[in-house]
Amino acid sequence: MGDIRRIGVLTSGGDCAGLNAVIRAVTHRAVGSYGWKVLGILDGTLGLMDRPLRYTEMDLDLFSGRDLLRAGGTVLGTVNKGDPFAFPMPDGKVVDRSLDFVDGFHRLELDGLVVIGGDGSMRILKQLCDKGSIGMVGVPKTIDNDVEATEYAVGFSTAVNVVTEALDRLQATAASHHRVMILEVMGRDAGHIAVNAGIAGGADVILVPELPYSLEGIAQRIRKVQAEGRSHALIVVAEGVKTLGGEAATVSHSGGQTRYGGIGAYLSERIAEATGTETRVTILGHVQRGGVPSMRDRLLASAFGVHAVDLIAQRRFGRMVAWQNRGVIDVPLEEVCVGPRCLEPHGPLLNAARGLGIYVGEVPPA
Amino acid sequence: MGDIRRIGVLTSGGDCAGLNAVIRAVTHRAVGSYGWKVLGILDGTLGLMDRPLRYTEMDLDLFSGRDLLRAGGTVLGTVNKGDPFAFPMPDGKVVDRSLDFVDGFHRLELDGLVVIGGDGSMRILKQLCDKGSIGMVGVPKTIDNDVEATEYAVGFSTAVNVVTEALDRLQATAASHHRVMILEVMGRDAGHIAVNAGIAGGADVILVPELPYSLEGIAQRIRKVQAEGRSHALIVVAEGVKTLGGEAATVSHSGGQTRYGGIGAYLSERIAEATGTETRVTILGHVQRGGVPSMRDRLLASAFGVHAVDLIAQRRFGRMVAWQNRGVIDVPLEEVCVGPRCLEPHGPLLNAARGLGIYVGEVPPA
Amino acid sequence: MGDIRRIGVLTSGGDCAGLNAVIRAVTHRAVGSYGWKVLGILDGTLGLMDRPLRYTEMDLDLFSGRDLLRAGGTVLGTVNKGDPFAFPMPDGKVVDRSLDFVDGFHRLELDGLVVIGGDGSMRILKQLCDKGSIGMVGVPKTIDNDVEATEYAVGFSTAVNVVTEALDRLQATAASHHRVMILEVMGRDAGHIAVNAGIAGGADVILVPELPYSLEGIAQRIRKVQAEGRSHALIVVAEGVKTLGGEAATVSHSGGQTRYGGIGAYLSERIAEATGTETRVTILGHVQRGGVPSMRDRLLASAFGVHAVDLIAQRRFGRMVAWQNRGVIDVPLEEVCVGPRCLEPHGPLLNAARGLGIYVGEVPPA
Amino acid sequence: MGDIRRIGVLTSGGDCAGLNAVIRAVTHRAVGSYGWKVLGILDGTLGLMDRPLRYTEMDLDLFSGRDLLRAGGTVLGTVNKGDPFAFPMPDGKVVDRSLDFVDGFHRLELDGLVVIGGDGSMRILKQLCDKGSIGMVGVPKTIDNDVEATEYAVGFSTAVNVVTEALDRLQATAASHHRVMILEVMGRDAGHIAVNAGIAGGADVILVPELPYSLEGIAQRIRKVQAEGRSHALIVVAEGVKTLGGEAATVSHSGGQTRYGGIGAYLSERIAEATGTETRVTILGHVQRGGVPSMRDRLLASAFGVHAVDLIAQRRFGRMVAWQNRGVIDVPLEEVCVGPRCLEPHGPLLNAARGLGIYVGEVPPA
Repeated sequence: MGDIRRIGVLTSGGDCAGLNAVIRAVTHRAVGSYGWKVLGILDGTLGLMDRPLRYTEMDLDLFSGRDLLRAGGTVLGTVNKGDPFAFPMPDGKVVDRSLDFVDGFHRLELDGLVVIGGDGSMRILKQLCDKGSIGMVGVPKTIDNDVEATEYAVGFSTAVNVVTEALDRLQATAASHHRVMILEVMGRDAGHIAVNAGIAGGADVILVPELPYSLEGIAQRIRKVQAEGRSHALIVVAEGVKTLGGEAATVSHSGGQTRYGGIGAYLSERIAEATGTETRVTILGHVQRGGVPSMRDRLLASAFGVHAVDLIAQRRFGRMVAWQNRGVIDVPLEEVCVGPRCLEPHGPLLNAARGLGIYVGEVPPA
Repeated sequence: MGDIRRIGVLTSGGDCAGLNAVIRAVTHRAVGSYGWKVLGILDGTLGLMDRPLRYTEMDLDLFSGRDLLRAGGTVLGTVNKGDPFAFPMPDGKVVDRSLDFVDGFHRLELDGLVVIGGDGSMRILKQLCDKGSIGMVGVPKTIDNDVEATEYAVGFSTAVNVVTEALDRLQATAASHHRVMILEVMGRDAGHIAVNAGIAGGADVILVPELPYSLEGIAQRIRKVQAEGRSHALIVVAEGVKTLGGEAATVSHSGGQTRYGGIGAYLSERIAEATGTETRVTILGHVQRGGVPSMRDRLLASAFGVHAVDLIAQRRFGRMVAWQNRGVIDVPLEEVCVGPRCLEPHGPLLNAARGLGIYVGEVPPA
Repeated sequence: MGDIRRIGVLTSGGDCAGLNAVIRAVTHRAVGSYGWKVLGILDGTLGLMDRPLRYTEMDLDLFSGRDLLRAGGTVLGTVNKGDPFAFPMPDGKVVDRSLDFVDGFHRLELDGLVVIGGDGSMRILKQLCDKGSIGMVGVPKTIDNDVEATEYAVGFSTAVNVVTEALDRLQATAASHHRVMILEVMGRDAGHIAVNAGIAGGADVILVPELPYSLEGIAQRIRKVQAEGRSHALIVVAEGVKTLGGEAATVSHSGGQTRYGGIGAYLSERIAEATGTETRVTILGHVQRGGVPSMRDRLLASAFGVHAVDLIAQRRFGRMVAWQNRGVIDVPLEEVCVGPRCLEPHGPLLNAARGLGIYVGEVPPA
Repeated sequence: MGDIRRIGVLTSGGDCAGLNAVIRAVTHRAVGSYGWKVLGILDGTLGLMDRPLRYTEMDLDLFSGRDLLRAGGTVLGTVNKGDPFAFPMPDGKVVDRSLDFVDGFHRLELDGLVVIGGDGSMRILKQLCDKGSIGMVGVPKTIDNDVEATEYAVGFSTAVNVVTEALDRLQATAASHHRVMILEVMGRDAGHIAVNAGIAGGADVILVPELPYSLEGIAQRIRKVQAEGRSHALIVVAEGVKTLGGEAATVSHSGGQTRYGGIGAYLSERIAEATGTETRVTILGHVQRGGVPSMRDRLLASAFGVHAVDLIAQRRFGRMVAWQNRGVIDVPLEEVCVGPRCLEPHGPLLNAARGLGIYVGEVPPA
């Protein structure tokens, strides 16, 4: 088993703030401390599956030209649908291209690969590691913060900042017009963004996919706020929240025209009916992926990137770096691949929200 | 004609950032310099038309409690549909309640009234002044910046900041995913927000209500950008832009569900078809009304509020304060009430945009 | 032992962002959930030691007027020198006024008191608790983040954001003029602000009170950066860092004129001599105490405030709330009162910094 | 007289936010619209005076790598002391190197040169133009905004934003501790930053170099604020303000140690003595040069860059672009070179400040 000489780094899945800061830290550590070569694989897994292979050599000079610490997104590019084991072809078929990926790894003569990805990417990473012979480590990133085993994933803090800032703005206009403002935020399976930003932004109601809710619960909270002398209210709802009938309130693409009728729009009408108050809905969308990463995302990204490279130096593959109790640690991928991490019904933030009088859905038995 | 002793201030129409800063400046000048009483009229024109009258006395103490310079929106409240000459009653009828307004003015024994409002409010203000016997001055505010005779209205600068910031964020995610991102912004009649933020935020295409556009023009610009080696593009479109067929691309409320199918969604599909590039649309909505006002909006608001009170002190009624060439001036309301101020096809910003290679619609003959 | 009916809340020591958000959460929980009365004690311990007693009743209405979630500092006021056991009198004498404090507590018929303070305040809190008969709980706040037993104290995150933002700005001007920019930040005993912001802001050198440094170490790093083709560098230094001779580089007040000659100015000259590079120094000062609290500080403040009131409800006095591993817990004050928490020489952030090539002082034996 | 084929662009004097955005606009217009070559001259006038000549070719590709619209400072570098007519040599002598500059211009076969600079640079530009045979146009930039004939220079708006934000932060800590906070800002000859940020940031006292002041005037204002029930106050002072004795309150470099004893520190002591109130001083320094340019600076920079290139295309040399009344115009350099533009004692902003009760120095006869 020879020395490490050459590693790759790729970003996988939806983009977020701080990806470039991870790439920078990986390069600094690998090139600056260990003297290795670093290849940046382009467009997620595609760069290794496509032929010719697509990659770029990373060096420290890059950073004088591009400010990777502060630039949002990823200079390497990324794709949402790049699972090598279930790759969607243009003709609609889904094929297994994992051998292409492994072959690409070997053709580039990589001794290790840093994969920056979310919950799904970590599962794929584990499968690829299980196929053997290629050494990889994971760095968790996702605005949803639903990766197991780490307190924070890269990109989450910036996303919550963006949503909190939106609530600060909506609060002003809601108060001026005596309205109920509904803000629909990201979060298909988990309500981390909604509950963090909802508390920080002063929401009166926070709805998350993990907890059922009732229209009466919402209306009661609004009436209480009005009784206390405040004529407006703020509601944050995660996109993954279902209608009262338990259906998905999705965006439809039909008749050649995209129609947005998500959960925000649904609730806007229900709440207007139930309370007689004027409502308005805002869907933040892609701005939540952020631009300039927050201080915390830059810190996480920097510490993660260094530690990921150190794992490769020690040939400790099949692991993911994680943040726990003030520091970086690493965990085996098995611990991570147990599904998205959701809010616990009686976790600290939901309890804090309830303590502030915020309606967060029906209280499940403790 | 006795001395001025008591004035009112009200905010009218859609809220924006900086309204409170005007109210603060009016109070500081009237109470602090002249020793008058200031009554804050609640909820726009309603406070004077409702019986009992609704108002609150403003004083300097208020400011130690509430930070009106920095707080977004209006502590006095405002309504969108409060035209005394054409007031929509709950039963659907539209009635003339202008006498109620004038009567309210007299009952409060006001010697003058500062009305902070947009293009429409200034027209109503002029009509009310023409009815005689009540002395009023106007302060222009609108995120659309379409009030005549003033370079800037309160609220515009903050709105453009919010949109520019959104473009900074969308740029990062567009680049990471090689997408065309479409941002739909406010502006029913005028494209000031779109063109200001579009240039400042690095848009490749800016569509405004004032200029026709072609799908080919947009596609050509995107292809040129791609030919130069950039895989993503940013498009800003004002909500008032029509479809290629010349129809309004409005939001529909039908079947108990709000459906958003505005111009952004429309273009998203057309452009994806025409260029084969992945597109995404974001609708900023109410966050454009801002929270904490920008430095410029606070400056404008402060200078406007002081000057409006000075006009009342000089009994120079029927005028609007305005910003021209580095300073505050005032103009007769007649000069203002000539319809919304739109972009000139060959104005300085549209020309600058063209000079940067941005597609801003078909070029009209100079 | 009767029911809890009436509690107090006070802020102690240097102000920071998020204090008002704690006060808001305490009031929401105590008034809204438990139906208690809440008295806000004015100006730290003074409000209870002065006669007449100085306090204000807090209620939920307050929040419609003042936006305590978002407002920086403390509406209750605070003082730096208010230790009841060693109170500095105007005549220069230091006296024990702790009996006044205890007496004030009883006169107000308080059943509990929430003290929001730093490392020093927690020690005083413990002493007061030991005197018996008054029930108190602590909430940690300090921009220095040097309170034991909690991952974060209220105010720290905002302070680090401010410093990071300053580094982002200094980076631009440093690069334009090929300069070494030195930023002196707060931190008398502990370098938490310096190392967090230094990594997040892309510093090349970070000097903290906990680690010795050499001029040669700094110069070497600057020369390496220059060799890599970058003509500028950023240095962050905590105010508590000593000169190379081991002396404090303090601000002097002499001859009727304040002279600032702190560690930043000292290093500026030493580094200019050692490297022949142009240097400039910036001292951030009080802006680090922040205005609008960061998202994280609002979250912490909200969760801490709720939990502190719950402790009182359970009569679990003599404890401090703390943040550990994603949630709020509480610890006995004894665990906290073991001196300021400093950086560990081989802690995760210092290690990450070293991994990025940042000079953080001489490496102590592991 | 042949066609324009090749132009240069350089940045001169102190850096600020928006310089890169001008460079980007110049390149876009010259390369994209006219098909010219653009050479970026390095380090201000040095790049043309040094041998070998120092420059880099600018192209549109550059922008995919570096985000020049949003990046602060100048990628071309700049120097403060680069006057070709009075160039300071390392040996201390001052020599005329203007022939080197003209020679450099010809060696590079430039058909025109865009100089981005402040008040001083425009004067040098005029002298160089007068020497004949080289065609140049100026773009005004300076955080001080003291260039004649233009409402705004690039960099000013960002600087005022930074100062306003600092005041927002200082307000919170001043209120918490009942202090008078003094903020020293840039402005040697002109108080534009101080008065703009002072009004926008809610200052109670604004001192500028253009107006005399008295300690009694300041103290009176502070006492009035206190009488109204507010226990804190904010003071903004431009660095160029003199002591009461009329002397400069400069920073001294003596005994091997830089000592900061500027006007902020001076006033801090005087005001503490005069009012018995606790005072604190903050010196913002280089952060005022900004990082990411404000929306307005990006707009200005974009419009200026395009127009400057258009002037060259029309061979209208010896002119400076300027912003007046909503648009870009151009003026002959003679109109600009009449000294720094200072505040008029009865200009609109100083009047607005007085109207708000702010003390801005002794009122001169109108």
